[in-house]
Amino acid sequence: MELKTKVTAEEGKQELIVTREFDLPLDLLFRAYTEPELVAEWMGTKVLKLENKKYGSWRFETTDPQGNKHGFSGTIHDFVPNQKIVRTFEMENSGFGVQLEFLEFEQLTDNTSKLRMHIIYKTLEERAQYLQIGMARGMGLAHNRLEKAAFKFLKY
Amino acid sequence: MELKTKVTAEEGKQELIVTREFDLPLDLLFRAYTEPELVAEWMGTKVLKLENKKYGSWRFETTDPQGNKHGFSGTIHDFVPNQKIVRTFEMENSGFGVQLEFLEFEQLTDNTSKLRMHIIYKTLEERAQYLQIGMARGMGLAHNRLEKAAFKFLKY
Repeated sequence: MELKTKVTAEEGKQELIVTREFDLPLDLLFRAYTEPELVAEWMGTKVLKLENKKYGSWRFETTDPQGNKHGFSGTIHDFVPNQKIVRTFEMENSGFGVQLEFLEFEQLTDNTSKLRMHIIYKTLEERAQYLQIGMARGMGLAHNRLEKAAFKFLKY
Repeated sequence: MELKTKVTAEEGKQELIVTREFDLPLDLLFRAYTEPELVAEWMGTKVLKLENKKYGSWRFETTDPQGNKHGFSGTIHDFVPNQKIVRTFEMENSGFGVQLEFLEFEQLTDNTSKLRMHIIYKTLEERAQYLQIGMARGMGLAHNRLEKAAFKFLKY
């Protein structure tokens, strides 16, 4: 399956730019990042906390096939509905560091929209670690699930 | 006056490394970043909020000679007493972006300690903006005030 998500890792910069166009209206794309039920479906996580507000925080948890729990969490620095979310992100107890993510949501047409993520890392090495574990492909596949889950959600 | 604070801006990297050794015990240096009364004194700000905990947030405010108020605020991603604070930082309504700051506190001797700040910016241009407004010298002077304020605090 073609991955529509583009991940740009410019040489020597401690950042990633991720862009993706969705066959979803803007408000539904935004809901896929903010409604616990939808987030849980496409990310495959339990949504333990998701405070959609400036100075809020969030925490998700997955369980691997061996039954081990893995937590992901962070704070929400900024939150503007249908426009942007600025948040920190950390894979807990993973040896990976804390990153800062700028998510920008944009309407393209009535039925299509675009997500742009600008992720900054403490070091070049941390960015390399994320790329090495297949983050680019993983995100592309997750975005495919997002589109499918959100579309289904619409019809309910 | 010699500035003991060293600011390193490596060419082409969207980060700053700030280091400073203080003639203060570690716990007192940490208090200078976490006790509202002390923060207010050396930063010259009102401390409107300072939630010293993981997933907390903070907000400071200064008033310029013309009477205009300037806000600074962010979230606290991580908080380990006498060891580290990971926080976001933004000068509100300034045109400057959101940055992520890693503060590490280290004991050198019973009476001396070290602060290392690793600040990452969304872009190289944002880092350049901060340097241009005299951030390096400003921080050095502020750290001198910190040392003085904390020392006085000890004797009370």
